[in-house]
Amino acid sequence: MKTKVIVLLSGGMDSVTALHVSMRDYEVVGAISFNYGSKHNAREIPFASYHCEKNGIPHQIIDATFMGKLFKSSLLLNGEDIPEGHYADETMKSTVVPFRNGIMLSIACGYCESVGAEGVVIGAHSGDHAIYPDCRNEFMEAMSNAMQLGTYADIKLICPFVDVDKTEIVRIGAGLKVDYSQTWSCYKGKDTHCGACGTCYERKEAFELSGVADPTNYEQ
Amino acid sequence: MKTKVIVLLSGGMDSVTALHVSMRDYEVVGAISFNYGSKHNAREIPFASYHCEKNGIPHQIIDATFMGKLFKSSLLLNGEDIPEGHYADETMKSTVVPFRNGIMLSIACGYCESVGAEGVVIGAHSGDHAIYPDCRNEFMEAMSNAMQLGTYADIKLICPFVDVDKTEIVRIGAGLKVDYSQTWSCYKGKDTHCGACGTCYERKEAFELSGVADPTNYEQ
Repeated sequence: MKTKVIVLLSGGMDSVTALHVSMRDYEVVGAISFNYGSKHNAREIPFASYHCEKNGIPHQIIDATFMGKLFKSSLLLNGEDIPEGHYADETMKSTVVPFRNGIMLSIACGYCESVGAEGVVIGAHSGDHAIYPDCRNEFMEAMSNAMQLGTYADIKLICPFVDVDKTEIVRIGAGLKVDYSQTWSCYKGKDTHCGACGTCYERKEAFELSGVADPTNYEQ
Repeated sequence: MKTKVIVLLSGGMDSVTALHVSMRDYEVVGAISFNYGSKHNAREIPFASYHCEKNGIPHQIIDATFMGKLFKSSLLLNGEDIPEGHYADETMKSTVVPFRNGIMLSIACGYCESVGAEGVVIGAHSGDHAIYPDCRNEFMEAMSNAMQLGTYADIKLICPFVDVDKTEIVRIGAGLKVDYSQTWSCYKGKDTHCGACGTCYERKEAFELSGVADPTNYEQ
């Protein structure tokens, strides 16, 4: 019998690929998205819904707009402008939303136990580690430990891309026929991908290096 | 210079005492309460506000009603009736809200880093461990580790009552002149404390054993 899992699904490339990998490897009993008051929530969440509807997966969209109201980050609607330049640059640190993965994983963990599922899948990958402390392996291991100790059902944290970078994620996704035209990355959240912010850089690069055709329209 | 902390404040005896201990030992830069859709939120949160206003502490009330909508627990408005009997009884397990402390600590951790504070104080105590997995020391240690690894500022988790039971908490609070008439315990959330549910039993017992006068009106 396959392990029952809940997938954290933002509507970006990593989480949409994680959803497809999970559909192959586990029994996906639900996906969970967060409206946390970011500039690009309105762009990415509809793509999360798209993949859930297409695959018959129950989808919960959590109102976590308290983050947008109380937290400081350029990623949030009330924050400063999104910086441009490559992801690894010091300036991209302004896009960190403090402990965002910790918060999303905790809520998913409680939901997971409530619906009788056994694990939570997150698409965090090895390329994320540089600027986001709550994407690092060490954090994921500590959080996994907390989730197991803090629940009756010993809820597992499953990170399928822990040793994989974004280029490899695109290759895996292409193999699973993931439609990347139905995913969103750009932090600015305008009508089209800006092509200039860190996450657009990373998106372009992943397609280029993987050799998979990039279906995205970029502003620049 | 004193450590700047955020206090998790439900409006119950433990967290209100933790607030007063923190005012003595740390610089309290904020308190945070959660409306998570429980039957007694409407009773306890006003007491949280009372102690914050009295002591000039900024108070954030987080809308976490997604828990009330999605999670299963008799503690929640949409759940079954609150069982009666002593806290340690098997029936009281129905009051567990899955990973509630994990969720509240994660949100407090992100808020803590956003406002430049250094630690999060929680009033969990040694008597809590029996039925709630996310009150156990092992969980608190794992969560503390996750919070430090998942933030730039190495946010600390501070548990002043980790080796103390509720009786001792009341003694400590009485020494700090905590007004326990301005606290709420009863899970049923009616006009007065029922006196029959697990948390009412525990409240009565803590006053009796500590020798501190109990200012509470109980229905029975």
